[in-house]
Amino acid sequence: MRLSELSARSGIPTATIKYYLREQLLPQGRRITATQAEYDESHLRRLRLVRALTQVGKVPVAAAREVLAAVDDESLSRTIRLGAALWALPQPPEADPEDPATTQADEEARHLLGELGWDNALEIGPLSPAYRTLVTAMASLQQLGYVTGVAELTPYARKMEEVAGHDLDVLEALPEEVEQVEAAVAAAVLYEPVLLSLRRLAQEELATRRYGL
Amino acid sequence: MRLSELSARSGIPTATIKYYLREQLLPQGRRITATQAEYDESHLRRLRLVRALTQVGKVPVAAAREVLAAVDDESLSRTIRLGAALWALPQPPEADPEDPATTQADEEARHLLGELGWDNALEIGPLSPAYRTLVTAMASLQQLGYVTGVAELTPYARKMEEVAGHDLDVLEALPEEVEQVEAAVAAAVLYEPVLLSLRRLAQEELATRRYGL
Repeated sequence: MRLSELSARSGIPTATIKYYLREQLLPQGRRITATQAEYDESHLRRLRLVRALTQVGKVPVAAAREVLAAVDDESLSRTIRLGAALWALPQPPEADPEDPATTQADEEARHLLGELGWDNALEIGPLSPAYRTLVTAMASLQQLGYVTGVAELTPYARKMEEVAGHDLDVLEALPEEVEQVEAAVAAAVLYEPVLLSLRRLAQEELATRRYGL
Repeated sequence: MRLSELSARSGIPTATIKYYLREQLLPQGRRITATQAEYDESHLRRLRLVRALTQVGKVPVAAAREVLAAVDDESLSRTIRLGAALWALPQPPEADPEDPATTQADEEARHLLGELGWDNALEIGPLSPAYRTLVTAMASLQQLGYVTGVAELTPYARKMEEVAGHDLDVLEALPEEVEQVEAAVAAAVLYEPVLLSLRRLAQEELATRRYGL
């Protein structure tokens, strides 16, 4: 399809698509004349992902370019491509590693992963932004006087393990590896508010059932 | 205990505690002389919550005051106090209610709650900020071309129902209703990054198990 049709089908103005092409967020189309290029379904899918990252995820353009480079790097294994894309997303601020509360939370997080049998996650350890986010959140909770040991966190970790298993099952139903990696990135950004709002709605539902209105 | 001991035990400077007292984030102590007041364990607990809201949750002081007023209002039922406190927390920006994508997402969200049997949540409906956040996230996903129907969201909703059931069980183990309400507010703010990072760690763990490194 031509640029005009890509614009019509995606609902994104041609000027914006040209900007994405210049910024290397969207791969160039197949050149057919000096001034025209041909685009396909992969461009349409990629446009959705660029919108998800920049508009919903508020990911800066430079970070989005890095995420998309990892998505496209076929020399990497599937696990690394899934991970590398997520790792390039902007992360929340981290706890001070010199703080004793951080050191203690780090020890407890390792102990938790060991008890859960998450040996791969334990091996990746502090290299993973998710691990560092967990340690930061645990350190905050502890500094505020809340207990976040293995006993408190295991029930939540087991539920999230089931959620993650479902996440991967959904991805595996997609035909191509590049689509799976794209969907993983979109899901990371877009499904987080869905999960959190479903948790709060379920709390309201169950509180009303247990205690009345 | 005196102000100096409250400061020592909480690790919060006396000047900050005096600021919280002036801003009505912390109830006044029991006056014992013209210049001295006596504080107890409830003040220590409340200080933790104020820190959780303002420092970790980045809740503005005016909103924090509103949350704490709901926590303290014993004329309200437990469900309403749990809900009112959460409802007063700052919410993410909402979808344009005039947009047809929002109307469609709203219909699908109602259909989802009906199928889940979450009749109380359905009745509370758009009054609940969690419901509006869900509709906004579903509308974003749909505009980007992702399908978010009952089939896609039910597995996530069921997991979050189990998480919410565990949330309430943990609260019920606390002796006093005011403590339960305080813990609900703290958990809403502090446990969300824990849940999301556990989901990402579980994805890394399971992807490595399924596809190797």
